[in-house]
Amino acid sequence: MTFSQLSFSGGGLDRRAHLRDEPKTLTALFENAKILPVWRGKPLVHYDQTLGWIAAEHALLDLAQQKIYFLGQTDEQAYFAADISEWEPKDEPKVVDGFFDDSAQTHPDLGSDCAFLELRGIMLTLSPLEGELAVTAKALVHWNSVSGFCSACGAAAHVQKAGWQRTCAGCGLSHFPRTDPVVIMLVTRGNQALIGRSHAWPKGMYSCLAGFIEPGETLEAAVEREVFEEAGITVEDVRYHASQPWPFPASLMFGCVARAISEKITLDPVELEDARWITKEEMMQVMAGHHPEITPARKGAIAHHLISAWLAGTY
Amino acid sequence: MTFSQLSFSGGGLDRRAHLRDEPKTLTALFENAKILPVWRGKPLVHYDQTLGWIAAEHALLDLAQQKIYFLGQTDEQAYFAADISEWEPKDEPKVVDGFFDDSAQTHPDLGSDCAFLELRGIMLTLSPLEGELAVTAKALVHWNSVSGFCSACGAAAHVQKAGWQRTCAGCGLSHFPRTDPVVIMLVTRGNQALIGRSHAWPKGMYSCLAGFIEPGETLEAAVEREVFEEAGITVEDVRYHASQPWPFPASLMFGCVARAISEKITLDPVELEDARWITKEEMMQVMAGHHPEITPARKGAIAHHLISAWLAGTY
Repeated sequence: MTFSQLSFSGGGLDRRAHLRDEPKTLTALFENAKILPVWRGKPLVHYDQTLGWIAAEHALLDLAQQKIYFLGQTDEQAYFAADISEWEPKDEPKVVDGFFDDSAQTHPDLGSDCAFLELRGIMLTLSPLEGELAVTAKALVHWNSVSGFCSACGAAAHVQKAGWQRTCAGCGLSHFPRTDPVVIMLVTRGNQALIGRSHAWPKGMYSCLAGFIEPGETLEAAVEREVFEEAGITVEDVRYHASQPWPFPASLMFGCVARAISEKITLDPVELEDARWITKEEMMQVMAGHHPEITPARKGAIAHHLISAWLAGTY
Repeated sequence: MTFSQLSFSGGGLDRRAHLRDEPKTLTALFENAKILPVWRGKPLVHYDQTLGWIAAEHALLDLAQQKIYFLGQTDEQAYFAADISEWEPKDEPKVVDGFFDDSAQTHPDLGSDCAFLELRGIMLTLSPLEGELAVTAKALVHWNSVSGFCSACGAAAHVQKAGWQRTCAGCGLSHFPRTDPVVIMLVTRGNQALIGRSHAWPKGMYSCLAGFIEPGETLEAAVEREVFEEAGITVEDVRYHASQPWPFPASLMFGCVARAISEKITLDPVELEDARWITKEEMMQVMAGHHPEITPARKGAIAHHLISAWLAGTY
């Protein structure tokens, strides 16, 4: 991709799903594995912006209490994730603008060159493989952390298949990691595109509209509904462009483009603080960081990618 | 679409999500609403193959015990779904070939012209609107039926927003209807396409390969992984084609096409009973029902649609 890097998109991890049910093989692999500690959604990261892998004998893993999950392999290297959220750090997370946690938690058993950091802050610098490992680890840790009980009967649901399944000790129902499909779309009308901002976003930031696909909807119907609900704009000619895993906490973003056939914006004030049409020329200013009022979606995120592709004339 | 009808794809239902949180408005709408009874996943259907809507005062709704959910509106008509799975019928469901339930359950309080039928059996004859209403109802009823408890803490999770949310009485976590993204793909190599069959399918039936998108994967990566896992075939040039809600029980199918860059099939015998390459000429025989061994995917399903589009030269 020449127009914009899209983080977390296809690192080539070999997930080896059949090994999830082979505890002996996994135990042997674990001995020489790279293990990613995840603390309350934040992976361990070196300050050179590679992931902070630890080895099987590391004391930090005592905190994981069996919450260790198999991610997959590349050639002869196996990868696992470990949930160490039980740890109580001295430095509390700090959410900036109600949106992004830019604090760093350092653990005394780890070198001073690494800390637990929000994944969105490092997504541009991770390699594709480390990006895929990090989002898979974050998603798996989160799902297991909120799936200890059977939603159907309330009994304990025990982890199986190295973190990829939980089965109810009461009614026997099996549960699988959840992924919520989300549409995110750049709506264009001639030389203009529709962008909006949510109430909780940093001052000045605008991005593409987005929303969850509902049961009973196609991808295309979800795009049409969300744009109409949030901005009162009618669209047609919805096209899929690219997808991006987005485990905040469990989304998969389906990046689309669509053509508006109406222009008057009617805002849903609950969903959006503002929405506006912006020309290509003005959008170039935004993306270059030179616009007086508007700042763009984060680089590496699919909204940035869709906007870059539009400016580059890709669609 | 001229080449093949795709069921459940975009009926134009106005979901009016803001009304889900307005119980007074919904109570008023319910008085004149059309209500779809759903019994253990099967909607009520007239034998003329329209949905079997009932009215608010119908005695059958005593079986729903508050399990009534808002689907949306069209113009002035409101639609709801009611879960009456508590009912014990005389005629038990009968699963054919371990795959399709072709039995019909009739209830004494309903006319003899309607019965509870498997949705896949009527998907070709429902209008797009009734198709969307039926799949939305089925998905919502199922999700609520397996979500009475909080997966994070095991306490009771109470229905909110007319069936579109449940909130835990213990830890306060909110839960939302689940939709599992699935890739289904027609893999081609020149004049040939790759099809396979699962163990539980009716004798002779072959279709496209498919599988769940895992956390941390893009759409494209999931297609590549599934085809390699199930058939040992390497693909590239994955393209999205169309999507279809598939609430059996909670999937959204993302229909893709991909180009194979290897040919030798290595079967995963757990996932598939067989996989084979088939030429366009032979596939035309299959789709016409004239092949001596192979029967095609069900009409209306996205696999049938992908194959039809390939035969029609659409990609």
